[in-house]
Amino acid sequence: MHFTVDRDQFVQHVQNVNKAVSSRTTIPILTGIKIVAAADGVTLTGSDSDISIETFIPTEENDNQYVQVQEQGSIVLQARFFAEIVKKLPGEEIEVVVQDQFATTIRSGSVVFNLNGLDPEEYPRLPKLDDTNMFHLPQSLLKDMIRQTVFAVSAQETRPVLTGVNLESENGELICTATDSHRLALRKANLEAGSDAPDLSNIVIPGKSLNELSRLLSDDDATVEIIITETQVMFRFPHLLFYSRLLDGKYPVTKNMIPSETKTGVELSTKELLQSLDRALLLSRETKNNVINLKTLGDGRVEINSVSSEIGKVTENIDCDKIDGEELRISFNGKNITDALKVIDSEKIHIQFTGAMSPFVVRPTDHDQMLHLFSPVRTY
Amino acid sequence: MHFTVDRDQFVQHVQNVNKAVSSRTTIPILTGIKIVAAADGVTLTGSDSDISIETFIPTEENDNQYVQVQEQGSIVLQARFFAEIVKKLPGEEIEVVVQDQFATTIRSGSVVFNLNGLDPEEYPRLPKLDDTNMFHLPQSLLKDMIRQTVFAVSAQETRPVLTGVNLESENGELICTATDSHRLALRKANLEAGSDAPDLSNIVIPGKSLNELSRLLSDDDATVEIIITETQVMFRFPHLLFYSRLLDGKYPVTKNMIPSETKTGVELSTKELLQSLDRALLLSRETKNNVINLKTLGDGRVEINSVSSEIGKVTENIDCDKIDGEELRISFNGKNITDALKVIDSEKIHIQFTGAMSPFVVRPTDHDQMLHLFSPVRTY
Repeated sequence: MHFTVDRDQFVQHVQNVNKAVSSRTTIPILTGIKIVAAADGVTLTGSDSDISIETFIPTEENDNQYVQVQEQGSIVLQARFFAEIVKKLPGEEIEVVVQDQFATTIRSGSVVFNLNGLDPEEYPRLPKLDDTNMFHLPQSLLKDMIRQTVFAVSAQETRPVLTGVNLESENGELICTATDSHRLALRKANLEAGSDAPDLSNIVIPGKSLNELSRLLSDDDATVEIIITETQVMFRFPHLLFYSRLLDGKYPVTKNMIPSETKTGVELSTKELLQSLDRALLLSRETKNNVINLKTLGDGRVEINSVSSEIGKVTENIDCDKIDGEELRISFNGKNITDALKVIDSEKIHIQFTGAMSPFVVRPTDHDQMLHLFSPVRTY
Repeated sequence: MHFTVDRDQFVQHVQNVNKAVSSRTTIPILTGIKIVAAADGVTLTGSDSDISIETFIPTEENDNQYVQVQEQGSIVLQARFFAEIVKKLPGEEIEVVVQDQFATTIRSGSVVFNLNGLDPEEYPRLPKLDDTNMFHLPQSLLKDMIRQTVFAVSAQETRPVLTGVNLESENGELICTATDSHRLALRKANLEAGSDAPDLSNIVIPGKSLNELSRLLSDDDATVEIIITETQVMFRFPHLLFYSRLLDGKYPVTKNMIPSETKTGVELSTKELLQSLDRALLLSRETKNNVINLKTLGDGRVEINSVSSEIGKVTENIDCDKIDGEELRISFNGKNITDALKVIDSEKIHIQFTGAMSPFVVRPTDHDQMLHLFSPVRTY
């Protein structure tokens, strides 16, 4: 193998595939990045067996020459060193040559690295996925949907299926749900009319995969294609494929958990509640349970308080836009609520309480594409 | 005690004294910040017994009213919570009231914190230092001198005196020296003529103290007063006193370690050498010894190389401005050299080698206020 590649392009692509590589893998070959030079360009692959990323640098595109392939071939190079090395090379071009025994020479400017490569034949092949179940989304929308749900997945491996975000489709809507069984985040989006409406049910993508994917998503309307099979999901970008395994197991039916009745309704500023809970958490996070108490006052305000026997207590009142229904005293995990408030981009929220011992729902007031459900905490 | 204070002023001052507070102290009262309200203003103190910081907020200054003291008194409050609490308070003013049993109420806007305070009588008193041995320096100069030496102090406690920076005065110059016995950094500065020339000898300030002090130093010509006694040094800023203990023990005489002869002299770009060593360290830091080899070539260049049997090797050549004297092959700890190159603000350096087994000296070419001395590494 022998090729010369534009430095900036190469650095960018190596960094992208490197996101999938883990140093903690038990499969030695996966600590490397696979490089394949073919007539039409160079393909890079990185994988930790849960996530795989494949990118392609074409020999030329838009009148720019990116790669010159002198001799086709392939090699696997230790990701950790390789990614750092290419970043620090001084020249505008990088030359990569593989000799006998996978010995690889990387040249740039007056710098020569000789690296011990690994056998590319040992590198696992990525699956070829069937395009039948395919749809597309604007990247910025997918990024929002991930940000607004993935924080609520379970960090415990006791119920593995809860460490992922569930995707369902219903009436032309895509519904993402995440829950750790104490709180639930749900985000909906209309699938574009032009998109062949996919039929999604019990598709659970690991939270970790979505966090990695999120870093590749742009903030604009460029679309990403999503292809789903029995065991894998693939996100297709121009010149980049992102694969993730799906989680096994039946995702719990969450629809009937959302209460329909309201015993007490409160409408207030997202930011004021967030700042107030932040202060109250200063004391309650010390006791490790993050318990915060909320009480409706008669005068259109709610009182937030939290107590630590060791440090002291904090009390404050927040002016609400509206309080309807029964008086209420309730305790909850304040950290869970602030996690949700931080991803609600709307100025105002409505909280639907159904009694001191029952779950409650937080929704933005200006749209119905999102809800957050929380269990209260018993404090006696 | 009862006072009302401007929020922004208070936050700033609490953050400053909090820099001295350590949560790992064995003296419980030192986990707190001491607050004293007197007729002329509020004094805050934080300390970890090595470093102490005292700041003062005057009742008024430059026609701004900062504090209103309703009742004089004092209290000690847990630094960790207190510093975070004041930062998150919503109002423009903060009211602090101490009732019986050190119970303290902090009010701001609609927020009320009740904190359990500690007995201020238990808080150790800071020493009153005698001004006899006093001089002053521009803050930006002191900041530079710290940055350019403190990285070279020893991280090992086996010779405690080497964990500090040594201050000496000689012929109207201040000389700062730091060494871990493998490398040495020396920085000189002319003391201002107006300053009563101090007589400094074997004054060793802990590196940790200087790093903390550095964060308080401005980048401009505002001066700081430095007062030195047998066991303590104090830095006096407007409304802020920074105390540090001095290290016991005799600092080694380093003057005669600096070689005067030159067997090989090399002059080259600081940045090019730094970038080259950075690349070479990618391989050698894996073996944990950071060994890098340098070789003079006949053609006005030096070769830098490093080898890791596991990963591979790197070789590169750097064009030098000048190479004088004998041919040379030498090995050294590349990390130590890059640490020094990063604090040399000059574009070019001169390296004075005295043979493959002898120490060598790196100096900027454009002034003689700084030098860095290194031991070579034997590689056979």
